[in-house]
Amino acid sequence: MKFGGTSMGSDERIRVAARLTTEQHAQRPVVIVVSAMSKVTDLLLDSMKRAEAGDETGLDANLAALTEKHESCCKHLLPSSSQAAAQKAALDGVHALIAEFSRVVKGMLLLGERPLPATDRAVAIGERLSALMMAAYLESQGTHAAAVSAARVIATDAVFGNATPLMDETRQRAAAVLGPLLEKKILPVVTGFNGSTLDGRPTTLGRGGSDFSASILAAALDAEELWIWTDVDGIMTADPRLVPDARVLDAITYAEAAELAYAGAKVLHPRTLAPLVEHGIPVWSKNSFAPEKPGTRIVPKIQAAGGPHAVTSMREVAMVSIEPNGAAISGVRLMAEALRALDAADVELLAITSSSYRQNFCFLIRQADLDRALKQLQAEFAIELAHGYVKTPEVDTDVGLLAVVGEGMRGTSGLAGRIFTAISRENINIIAIAQGSSELTIAIAVRRSGLENAVRAVHKECGLAGK
Amino acid sequence: MKFGGTSMGSDERIRVAARLTTEQHAQRPVVIVVSAMSKVTDLLLDSMKRAEAGDETGLDANLAALTEKHESCCKHLLPSSSQAAAQKAALDGVHALIAEFSRVVKGMLLLGERPLPATDRAVAIGERLSALMMAAYLESQGTHAAAVSAARVIATDAVFGNATPLMDETRQRAAAVLGPLLEKKILPVVTGFNGSTLDGRPTTLGRGGSDFSASILAAALDAEELWIWTDVDGIMTADPRLVPDARVLDAITYAEAAELAYAGAKVLHPRTLAPLVEHGIPVWSKNSFAPEKPGTRIVPKIQAAGGPHAVTSMREVAMVSIEPNGAAISGVRLMAEALRALDAADVELLAITSSSYRQNFCFLIRQADLDRALKQLQAEFAIELAHGYVKTPEVDTDVGLLAVVGEGMRGTSGLAGRIFTAISRENINIIAIAQGSSELTIAIAVRRSGLENAVRAVHKECGLAGK
Amino acid sequence: MKFGGTSMGSDERIRVAARLTTEQHAQRPVVIVVSAMSKVTDLLLDSMKRAEAGDETGLDANLAALTEKHESCCKHLLPSSSQAAAQKAALDGVHALIAEFSRVVKGMLLLGERPLPATDRAVAIGERLSALMMAAYLESQGTHAAAVSAARVIATDAVFGNATPLMDETRQRAAAVLGPLLEKKILPVVTGFNGSTLDGRPTTLGRGGSDFSASILAAALDAEELWIWTDVDGIMTADPRLVPDARVLDAITYAEAAELAYAGAKVLHPRTLAPLVEHGIPVWSKNSFAPEKPGTRIVPKIQAAGGPHAVTSMREVAMVSIEPNGAAISGVRLMAEALRALDAADVELLAITSSSYRQNFCFLIRQADLDRALKQLQAEFAIELAHGYVKTPEVDTDVGLLAVVGEGMRGTSGLAGRIFTAISRENINIIAIAQGSSELTIAIAVRRSGLENAVRAVHKECGLAGK
Amino acid sequence: MKFGGTSMGSDERIRVAARLTTEQHAQRPVVIVVSAMSKVTDLLLDSMKRAEAGDETGLDANLAALTEKHESCCKHLLPSSSQAAAQKAALDGVHALIAEFSRVVKGMLLLGERPLPATDRAVAIGERLSALMMAAYLESQGTHAAAVSAARVIATDAVFGNATPLMDETRQRAAAVLGPLLEKKILPVVTGFNGSTLDGRPTTLGRGGSDFSASILAAALDAEELWIWTDVDGIMTADPRLVPDARVLDAITYAEAAELAYAGAKVLHPRTLAPLVEHGIPVWSKNSFAPEKPGTRIVPKIQAAGGPHAVTSMREVAMVSIEPNGAAISGVRLMAEALRALDAADVELLAITSSSYRQNFCFLIRQADLDRALKQLQAEFAIELAHGYVKTPEVDTDVGLLAVVGEGMRGTSGLAGRIFTAISRENINIIAIAQGSSELTIAIAVRRSGLENAVRAVHKECGLAGK
Repeated sequence: MKFGGTSMGSDERIRVAARLTTEQHAQRPVVIVVSAMSKVTDLLLDSMKRAEAGDETGLDANLAALTEKHESCCKHLLPSSSQAAAQKAALDGVHALIAEFSRVVKGMLLLGERPLPATDRAVAIGERLSALMMAAYLESQGTHAAAVSAARVIATDAVFGNATPLMDETRQRAAAVLGPLLEKKILPVVTGFNGSTLDGRPTTLGRGGSDFSASILAAALDAEELWIWTDVDGIMTADPRLVPDARVLDAITYAEAAELAYAGAKVLHPRTLAPLVEHGIPVWSKNSFAPEKPGTRIVPKIQAAGGPHAVTSMREVAMVSIEPNGAAISGVRLMAEALRALDAADVELLAITSSSYRQNFCFLIRQADLDRALKQLQAEFAIELAHGYVKTPEVDTDVGLLAVVGEGMRGTSGLAGRIFTAISRENINIIAIAQGSSELTIAIAVRRSGLENAVRAVHKECGLAGK
Repeated sequence: MKFGGTSMGSDERIRVAARLTTEQHAQRPVVIVVSAMSKVTDLLLDSMKRAEAGDETGLDANLAALTEKHESCCKHLLPSSSQAAAQKAALDGVHALIAEFSRVVKGMLLLGERPLPATDRAVAIGERLSALMMAAYLESQGTHAAAVSAARVIATDAVFGNATPLMDETRQRAAAVLGPLLEKKILPVVTGFNGSTLDGRPTTLGRGGSDFSASILAAALDAEELWIWTDVDGIMTADPRLVPDARVLDAITYAEAAELAYAGAKVLHPRTLAPLVEHGIPVWSKNSFAPEKPGTRIVPKIQAAGGPHAVTSMREVAMVSIEPNGAAISGVRLMAEALRALDAADVELLAITSSSYRQNFCFLIRQADLDRALKQLQAEFAIELAHGYVKTPEVDTDVGLLAVVGEGMRGTSGLAGRIFTAISRENINIIAIAQGSSELTIAIAVRRSGLENAVRAVHKECGLAGK
Repeated sequence: MKFGGTSMGSDERIRVAARLTTEQHAQRPVVIVVSAMSKVTDLLLDSMKRAEAGDETGLDANLAALTEKHESCCKHLLPSSSQAAAQKAALDGVHALIAEFSRVVKGMLLLGERPLPATDRAVAIGERLSALMMAAYLESQGTHAAAVSAARVIATDAVFGNATPLMDETRQRAAAVLGPLLEKKILPVVTGFNGSTLDGRPTTLGRGGSDFSASILAAALDAEELWIWTDVDGIMTADPRLVPDARVLDAITYAEAAELAYAGAKVLHPRTLAPLVEHGIPVWSKNSFAPEKPGTRIVPKIQAAGGPHAVTSMREVAMVSIEPNGAAISGVRLMAEALRALDAADVELLAITSSSYRQNFCFLIRQADLDRALKQLQAEFAIELAHGYVKTPEVDTDVGLLAVVGEGMRGTSGLAGRIFTAISRENINIIAIAQGSSELTIAIAVRRSGLENAVRAVHKECGLAGK
Repeated sequence: MKFGGTSMGSDERIRVAARLTTEQHAQRPVVIVVSAMSKVTDLLLDSMKRAEAGDETGLDANLAALTEKHESCCKHLLPSSSQAAAQKAALDGVHALIAEFSRVVKGMLLLGERPLPATDRAVAIGERLSALMMAAYLESQGTHAAAVSAARVIATDAVFGNATPLMDETRQRAAAVLGPLLEKKILPVVTGFNGSTLDGRPTTLGRGGSDFSASILAAALDAEELWIWTDVDGIMTADPRLVPDARVLDAITYAEAAELAYAGAKVLHPRTLAPLVEHGIPVWSKNSFAPEKPGTRIVPKIQAAGGPHAVTSMREVAMVSIEPNGAAISGVRLMAEALRALDAADVELLAITSSSYRQNFCFLIRQADLDRALKQLQAEFAIELAHGYVKTPEVDTDVGLLAVVGEGMRGTSGLAGRIFTAISRENINIIAIAQGSSELTIAIAVRRSGLENAVRAVHKECGLAGK
């Protein structure tokens, strides 16, 4: 089971999380993965930015807030009345971790820099704090528990800030570190989001990575199920901030979940599912604020009705168009070289489309990747651009991407027409469309200003709204 | 001016063509390019196939038919009553050319083979026959004319069967060969469809290449205009065999014409326009059966209303889907390598689309290119396929491609919705869609059985029908 | 056992070959592979060239010579006195084959062309003639024998003129065609040099390919040994025409033999050894003019003294130098792209060397490949050459390549010094040198005029001369 | 004029450098570039390593030594007796710079890390210290001078630790910053080795980069000449530590100097020459300990005798051999892909050689690049290696590389023989040889243990020793 930031957001939430944990723990062995308390990761990152910028005052205020938040939480969870010794031990632990953090940010302050390895080390302290408190609280409630830094369990490569797990080594570490605890009926409280390299340097899996931590551990331990506790009732048919009548899905397939994540839905990090797919481990996405609600199951296959199941949207995308100039380089060759360049720059393609005698082609990427993509393209085509064999890539950032996702969609007659009519009724122009043969996704690029209305219109047209 | 096969289809048609020619010739210098008489090219190709297969009887029948057709035409054009000497000269010329052809097919018969260079040489005889007759007829009508083999004028590379012109050399040859004729007011009757390598070996520009011959000559001679005479009233909003109420367009842009041709419309070979674009030479597509009708102008730019201008369709397409298997090779890299392979195999991409976390991508090509494409892909990915890093490419040939084309299309709100709704009203499933940012085309793949209805429905929905 | 052209050069030689065959056949099953009679392949190729050029007189003379040669051979092998019926049968066979050839060349005459598939079909007739005669003679001597066209046995790809065997299919065909003959104690006389595609069209393995035919069959039949009968006493330490005191080697390894062949020694076609290496089948290279001499064994490994074992030379080589111009493209990238181009053009690299801050690199190829190589390089670097990012490749054809080959060479102290001193004593300048780490070859490029003296000097210095 | 570390090694040396400067300054405008005092850069780097490792004691000792060294130098250069005010000002400057350095290393201490941008900022302090002292001393001697941080003058890309200059921007900055000083007859004392990004973050040009700084400035200022002051008499025929009778060369060409540098001679950083070549600016390499000696001129062309001019050696090289396994991937393709990988990993090839039917090829690189090269090769060939289509690359680090360099070398008959004989007389085995067509270098790989003897033997054999 994994508890996200809001599920660890206060002593009250931690109590609930502990209760949900012990309920399951009574029936079968459980490992939990915890995020930092809500807003703590942002606070840590902000502190490091302030340190880099030399803002010592702001930094001190942050450190004070950090200390206060965790002290207060400890005191509420472990009242001095009944748990004086436990409280003291927890507070000592909290202070030691914050001191470790302070040391790092002071170094950054002196250097005016925020190097990645130190950042990874420092940001993991948020999870270490919450794991410490959760373990202490569970103990105080009679459940034997131990806080475990994922740096001891999850082995990763050395790409600081965005590490990739090494599953074989992780499996061995998990057996060595968590196995003995489970045998002794001690419930491990593992920090989310982080790991360490083969030579022990702390890494992070990237933001949103606590889900990933949980799925890595589920796979490494051959778990029966993975439960992801969040603050929403499950995976929804659309972002409820955009679409008020979006509703929770009972079940979706891995493939749909991955598409949703890929297309911008904030449910599960795209990489989260990979370790589970291989072992067919089902996932429950549940709300820790309303645990009685069924949530959404993510499973290999479902017997549901066909048609679209959800609509997602991404605001921060860019559309890049590339076109040869003259016949010296063929459009297909150009496309091949451009894709090779994007691959080398590690840019994720959201969609690509091309149809023309002019062999112009265009692709959608995240705006965050745009600079990197353009630089690599410019390097790749330096000579061709300099002499006009390739036109200057055109970039359009006033673009939003929406995607309609669903396993049975292709069988649904008239769907494309209804979707595009729905969008056009809102007077929104469609800029580009990509739908492939075996896809369960139609990707549609529209002007940014029309994105939200388009999502609402499509959601309604596809009958996804709750009753 | 260029006269296609049907415009050269009989002595009657040749008389009309001659009249249309002399009308213009009275006003300004004219060069005409002629195709073989209708069905003659097919007869020549069939003869060569029979020769290769050893079918001597069928071959003899073909040769007899060929002789009869041209003899008869000569006799009608140049009646022995009034033009006895001219008739005899023309018949001698016809017999000499057919003897040349016979020699080649007999060689093929003995070899059981049909090598490309000999094929190019032999097939050009169709045009040489019609040029000979047209020139003789023009002379008999008082217009000085000379039949000119394009092998003397159009220089090409040595890709037999599908040669590409070498413009600089062609320009020089045209000045040297046609210049003196024009100076002497002799009207050149140039054979369409063929050319020759720099060392003089005959080549052909590929089928439909007579239009290309005409545009190459127009560019090489800095022509004021190019007139393409066919058997239809101009470029139409759709194939009239599929869409009875298709109508003739007044004018379209080069870009639209190229898109139409690329997407399968049988108007102008895609390559035809390239030589004209550079010099901005306007083209008239006119009907030699109804020369009084205005025809369609193809021009750099038009001031027409926006929106779709035409719908085309291609039946013989194939959709190929490629997908990595596991993470050893990234989808983007795979796409890059696949495109590189297609480029090396000289396969024209009709459309490409991709949108998925799975990085599956699919592309549409002509079925004629499918074998070549698959072979090259299999060679490129031999190791990856053998060990399962890439899934076996999936091929779907039960696919038709329709394309909606028009310069002003992107500004037309709701167009995509109306198009897709129109298709879905016919209960036709859409398999893939590709629309790029700067495109004037939406390409849509549907099941083959639904293609015709889809074209009709879209044509109607876009208001393209005549009144 | 394989008998080359000189071993099949006359009725006298055919008698000897038959005797050598029956001697072995008495002890164990034998399959023989025969080349065309010496000079016959050249006569066939020359006939086809004359046909293409329209030289009917020369062609007729060739056909007469071809007929005379084989008729005469038949008559001597099968005297009418004792073998009248056999002689008649053989002459009928010869005439039928020559008629088949005549038909093809007449087709070429008519077409003025020499297409590859027909060439492959026609040139195989040389081997079919010699196989027919050899089988007839063996029968006349009491050995049951059957002429077998390799087109029925060796399956190849469809690269006419230079086909590659498909071993699995060949193995099946060999079992189906040769198996029953061997069971019935009928000695198969297989034509060398040719095969057929999976759909039965005749192909050739390239010149010198009879050795390859033999090694393919040896592998397909799991032969104990392969004997290659030629007109020399074995593999020599150098070309005896250049080095009078060159001597025959007792044994060399597969690796050495391949290096020798690769570097120009006319012993075994480089590809010949590949099928044998896998099965470890030893090869004897023996002289059919002096069968009592031991010949040279080619084996996986030998226990011989280290040091150089042979010196080879190639006259028809070209050295190409490539160099970036300025820093827009790195030398390493340039090298990578150039090699990719050479691979695409299927050019065999004899040697490559580079050492410089300027990142100039140069490579040696056969002159026969030069045009193809340069064309591909020019296509690959069209833009870079046009704008001066890469210097025009420099080509030097006044170059000869000599290679010193030997398994134990690297252990031999002072060898390089002795070799280069020996060359310099002859006042021959060394242009380029390539010796790699794990090599058994040192490749040295010198001016062409010095090549022969250099070979002699190195041969002597390395103590390779016979006593 | 550029003064290296030893030329700035003590107050005594600084006095000499100042004198050499003012001598020239009397005649024409001079800009000088100064390195850090000798051993100071190592001290700074060692301090940062100690900080990273947490060695606070060692760090304090280093800081003390740093302070002491520069304080002492100031006091000697500017005696309190005569230059009390100047001394105080200089000491204040020194203390401020060392405080800046202290701040950075303390940050590193806290972080346990040594990020590149901070390292670049901190290491530049060595040059800023020496420039400050030199300018103060020049002023005290009546020459108006100003210390100028190259961060204000030399614009670079943002590759910290190994930046590349941006010449256009540098030219503008040089005009803006140095121009006004020169106009006012103020002699600029520019720090060597560093620069800054376009947004002003300090960078370094890599070690040995002070020469590069000087050549960049010479080019940016269109200097007449560049003088490089070192502690040796000029560029030598060999490393005098290996070859006692090595002698100073009068003059060499840019090309030779670049080859020497590329092949390991510690004279001028390879990149140093590039800015000069374009403008044809001659360089003098002179000894500040013996300024009366002529030194070595580096010029576009010389009229010297042909033959080898110098011998260099590199100890820290690695030889990597790559070989396909079976025929699935051709050797040439493999080579192409391997080189592409090396290019992507930015690995400099020292030499490459290949000669074999096996298509094995091997290349020499610096050991410092080996890890990076192997990683990239393993990534590139992951699938091929996993399934055995390519053999595991073999690496040999017990290898040394020597190179013989000289413009006229190729004309020298017998040279290769003499060189290799000289090496073999020392019983040293030659592992690989690379000599290209247009080269002025022969590169020879030998066992590491034999490298020094080989260099001595070749130096002697080539008659390079002084009398």
